[in-house]
Amino acid sequence: MSKITADTIRLLAADMVQKANSGHPGLPMGMADCATVLWTQFLKYNPQDPEWQGRDRFVMSGGHGSSLLYAVLHLAGYDISLEDLKNFRQWNSKTPGHPESHLPGVETTTGPLGQGLANAVGLALAARMSAAQWNNDNFNILGNHYTYCFCGDGDMMEGISHEASSLAGHLGLGKLICFYDSNSITIDGSTNLTFTEDVAMRFRAYHWHVQEIDGHDHEKIAKAIKMAQAELGKPSLIIAKTHIGFGSPNKQDSSAAHGAPLGEEELRLTKKALNFPENESFKIPDEVKIEFQAYQDTLTSDYESWQSVFKKWKSEAPDTYEKYIDQINKKLPKDLSKTILSTLSGKDNSTRAHSGNILQELVKQVSGLVGGSADLSASDKTTLKGKGYISRDDFSGKNIHYGIREFAMGAVMNGMALYGSGLIPYAGTFLVFSDYMRSAIRMSALMKNQVIYVFTHDSIFVGEDGPTHQPIEQIMSLRLIPGLQVIRPADEKETAEAWLAALKYQNGPTALILTRQDLPELHKNDHCSITDFDKGAHVIKDTKMPPEAVILASGSELSLCVDAAEKLAQEGCNIRVVSVPSYETFLMQEQSYRDSVSPPGSTPVVTVEAGRTLGWGNVSTKPVLHIGIDHYGASAPHQILAEKFGFTAEAVYNKVKAWLATAKAEISLK
Amino acid sequence: MSKITADTIRLLAADMVQKANSGHPGLPMGMADCATVLWTQFLKYNPQDPEWQGRDRFVMSGGHGSSLLYAVLHLAGYDISLEDLKNFRQWNSKTPGHPESHLPGVETTTGPLGQGLANAVGLALAARMSAAQWNNDNFNILGNHYTYCFCGDGDMMEGISHEASSLAGHLGLGKLICFYDSNSITIDGSTNLTFTEDVAMRFRAYHWHVQEIDGHDHEKIAKAIKMAQAELGKPSLIIAKTHIGFGSPNKQDSSAAHGAPLGEEELRLTKKALNFPENESFKIPDEVKIEFQAYQDTLTSDYESWQSVFKKWKSEAPDTYEKYIDQINKKLPKDLSKTILSTLSGKDNSTRAHSGNILQELVKQVSGLVGGSADLSASDKTTLKGKGYISRDDFSGKNIHYGIREFAMGAVMNGMALYGSGLIPYAGTFLVFSDYMRSAIRMSALMKNQVIYVFTHDSIFVGEDGPTHQPIEQIMSLRLIPGLQVIRPADEKETAEAWLAALKYQNGPTALILTRQDLPELHKNDHCSITDFDKGAHVIKDTKMPPEAVILASGSELSLCVDAAEKLAQEGCNIRVVSVPSYETFLMQEQSYRDSVSPPGSTPVVTVEAGRTLGWGNVSTKPVLHIGIDHYGASAPHQILAEKFGFTAEAVYNKVKAWLATAKAEISLK
Repeated sequence: MSKITADTIRLLAADMVQKANSGHPGLPMGMADCATVLWTQFLKYNPQDPEWQGRDRFVMSGGHGSSLLYAVLHLAGYDISLEDLKNFRQWNSKTPGHPESHLPGVETTTGPLGQGLANAVGLALAARMSAAQWNNDNFNILGNHYTYCFCGDGDMMEGISHEASSLAGHLGLGKLICFYDSNSITIDGSTNLTFTEDVAMRFRAYHWHVQEIDGHDHEKIAKAIKMAQAELGKPSLIIAKTHIGFGSPNKQDSSAAHGAPLGEEELRLTKKALNFPENESFKIPDEVKIEFQAYQDTLTSDYESWQSVFKKWKSEAPDTYEKYIDQINKKLPKDLSKTILSTLSGKDNSTRAHSGNILQELVKQVSGLVGGSADLSASDKTTLKGKGYISRDDFSGKNIHYGIREFAMGAVMNGMALYGSGLIPYAGTFLVFSDYMRSAIRMSALMKNQVIYVFTHDSIFVGEDGPTHQPIEQIMSLRLIPGLQVIRPADEKETAEAWLAALKYQNGPTALILTRQDLPELHKNDHCSITDFDKGAHVIKDTKMPPEAVILASGSELSLCVDAAEKLAQEGCNIRVVSVPSYETFLMQEQSYRDSVSPPGSTPVVTVEAGRTLGWGNVSTKPVLHIGIDHYGASAPHQILAEKFGFTAEAVYNKVKAWLATAKAEISLK
Repeated sequence: MSKITADTIRLLAADMVQKANSGHPGLPMGMADCATVLWTQFLKYNPQDPEWQGRDRFVMSGGHGSSLLYAVLHLAGYDISLEDLKNFRQWNSKTPGHPESHLPGVETTTGPLGQGLANAVGLALAARMSAAQWNNDNFNILGNHYTYCFCGDGDMMEGISHEASSLAGHLGLGKLICFYDSNSITIDGSTNLTFTEDVAMRFRAYHWHVQEIDGHDHEKIAKAIKMAQAELGKPSLIIAKTHIGFGSPNKQDSSAAHGAPLGEEELRLTKKALNFPENESFKIPDEVKIEFQAYQDTLTSDYESWQSVFKKWKSEAPDTYEKYIDQINKKLPKDLSKTILSTLSGKDNSTRAHSGNILQELVKQVSGLVGGSADLSASDKTTLKGKGYISRDDFSGKNIHYGIREFAMGAVMNGMALYGSGLIPYAGTFLVFSDYMRSAIRMSALMKNQVIYVFTHDSIFVGEDGPTHQPIEQIMSLRLIPGLQVIRPADEKETAEAWLAALKYQNGPTALILTRQDLPELHKNDHCSITDFDKGAHVIKDTKMPPEAVILASGSELSLCVDAAEKLAQEGCNIRVVSVPSYETFLMQEQSYRDSVSPPGSTPVVTVEAGRTLGWGNVSTKPVLHIGIDHYGASAPHQILAEKFGFTAEAVYNKVKAWLATAKAEISLK
């Protein structure tokens, strides 16, 4: 019976692609057998309650095989109708080109290869952490499920698969079960053209449990899943040798099946070969529906017993239960802001050090917070002290050693955020290495995952490490990622506000941009919130109205500007200084607020940041002077670099003064 | 004797770090023995002729161990004096924090981990290609050397090490010999905290030749190098078990030795333990100088015989020799521009297709051109037809299957560009995946490597593949990388000019931003160059002076703007349209040119690009309207997306018209 189910899935997928005249039939047709066995014999789910915490997770890492996932979700009774399948890849459909995490039954958005696998590692890790956090002898139902993932050759080639799999093997994530769809074909042709490594040996080297099977043999698939489930100490890789485009008489085993519709004629021939009516599309034989239903009936008792234990927990341990519910709802303590601001030292320090101190207070208030670092915890100050590190033997810690694996770190955090247990993962590395994980950051934003990126060593002030380690374009380039909140605080109080803003922004990621070097404290240590911090820019040093000019500056350059403005004030030149912790947030404010900060008309404006000037022009004011750095840095002590590159109060003062003279002359000419 | 040499190297390195009060002594002290054996028994080089094409290449992938490299280069007689060593990490020194490729004896800039290894793969690949291109039975001296690389735990953890090593194993780069400094320590502590994979097994899975040795035993090191050299069918990994900070009584084998000076007292104790005078710094015993000199004497005959064969080649095959010299000098044919422009079709097509056609002509003219793709050659149109693909058995091809390994692709191209044989590597992938290789692009720019990135599918016009595959922020974010030339052509002629500009820009990388969808041809098919194309922006549709408004647009949006302007002209509104193929190039022009394109004063300006508007504000004009897309895309046919997201001529016309009414009202108020 399963064979008909598999063929139904492969033909549904092929029909979807044909109707859309766009998409990838090869993967779904090749993996339909593995999907059938998994979804009709093993996977625990409830289409009526897609967010059921006890469900197994399923990740389609090769997101281009989305039609496979949609076909299965439809057959399994999720809220994806036959009409939705027919609307594959159309505007506003429930069946977009690549799976999107907001859709029912879709755990994560996939497409950029390798990241789905890393997301799955994050889901499996979050499961272990959830179990460690909440389960006990009497209550033992959280995080006990499996996480399944379908990967392909592309996932295996991408570097992130190495990072994530090495980490998963190290942590012994035994309930992670990945299928590698080894079909020997990629877009350019045979994998022999460029990919001849021994994947099985490679994964054994990562301490995974590895099996190799015929990916079209349902019995062998079932047996392999059972073996994989039984191995609880290691993640499992099931290498399924498959035929891409299985069933297509002329395109099977060729790259022609990968990324284009089979064509009307070939699709007919395929249906014929599979004993389906040649001229019927989107056909679902009754026995297929029956098979899915019969299997789901067997899941009912699992689901109900889980729910009854869950209810029992509520009644027997109401306090813990409430904490759990608060955590998954990411409920923040009412007085969080006040509590945090009252612990500030008021002392000069680097913003990374302030961040480290603030974190120790935050973790007392926010139970979902999970820290980590890409092997730079001492430098980026991300450790939650006394909270333990996750290890293969103990998942109760709140810190994670991600290793020197920035990209996987981002994608694993995405998985943890998606898990639904209220974890708020954050992790640190040097800002310049945000380049290594850029696509994961984008995926956080695209999926609206609350992930907090702690990027330290944020400018040429890194000093001796030189240009490879000195960010120039990174701050502005992060601001370009839609939905990413970028905050570059200028002192301790702004750092606290930045963390609070990151915690409050639950519909997307935040990047905190922090210094290596010490900065003077510029805000009053009065335990009160900074007025208008959440508007992205606020006046830090005002002058009698109207100001002769306005300086907008962020982070470590703010204090230079305050000093420069004071020097100018002594000469009778009245300059307002505005702190811009979140430039892109400021640009999104209503014009009235923007005008209140930076007066409209022809008031000269100066922007100052130790980074690229491109982008600062969107303050859309004239005349304007941008002080920044549009070339690479150099290796030397940071004080020397500040002088050489013009980032001292003196240099800012000189530049502003000289430019204002010209700018005023120009204005008066008009 | 070698022991004193190794100790001299480790103490020089430790002294450098101590004097700078900044740097990483642990790696140099741990790897000093491997360096000693390599540099005094095996490595072929000539300090008097650092660019000697016959030299072995040496890459320090863990660039933070730069003091090791500088110490060795000094001892080997390169142009790095003892004074330079004492100036470690200081302004304008020859010994910056991380090795920089412009320095004598430094093959590549390293620091961002994993990329040095991938650069080494590129160097080894370029060697094989050089040999295949130029050698014959009578002349056989090019590309015959070895490429050595020192890697550490960080390199091994980074995903790019997987991508690059898998590719190197696939290609059987037998003359690539990497040392893995396995010292079990990273910044956060023991590698056991997060990195427990079996690296030897992993590299055997990549089809590498793997040996494991005591990294402090000079005889074993020498034996391992000989074995590695003898294995010509596979790249070699020599896993050297070492002690980080070797010789430091209290810091050896601890992360304290990694990234901070040992401290005066500990340094004294280390010198004592190694039988060096406790209170002397930068000491170089005479026997060490003698050892280096004695070894170099043995290299003289190698060097001279190489040079004599080379001279013989010049006299016996002057034509081939001249071609070789022209290639390494990247000499372009005088009439290249004319030749290419005369082959254009004048037809409407996608710019990716135009690019593919132009490449077939370019390769006839430019012998150093080497193409490739990250498994998307059919989509990104990068194949040089009839020019063969590189394989382990034949390196004479001009195309490379990089596999789905974008990051390694970039870093391997950097290695090829650095090799010095005049290769001009280019490679393609989808623009959205530029995020996967961003740090390699930055390194191309930082090193001023001529590498050409072909990024296709450049906007929401990708269509059905949806938001994961639709670039939004990528174009502007590439423009932020200092030194990267970004060109987004609007039709066939601009695509040809873009390629010509990429070939002419020999001091840095270029990113070509190309469409998936067809575009109308907007320039005259007259075989002449576009006036002012190299200034980044040129008028494509003028009007009687002065224009009422100016539209600046790039790539696929240019034709929409031309259409919209024509519609407005019919209503008596005179709008100039400016094509901006290279926005950041335009911003770098003198004000007079910028004013000639976009008149100063209060002429309204509209910028149009299917990407982020942040950044376009730097046109620094007022009033200004930015038409762009500041949110993620969606899955649907591209024509539908154009309508939904306002990228039709009609939508542009409506927006400009409505805004101009307001803008003019504002201006007249002033």
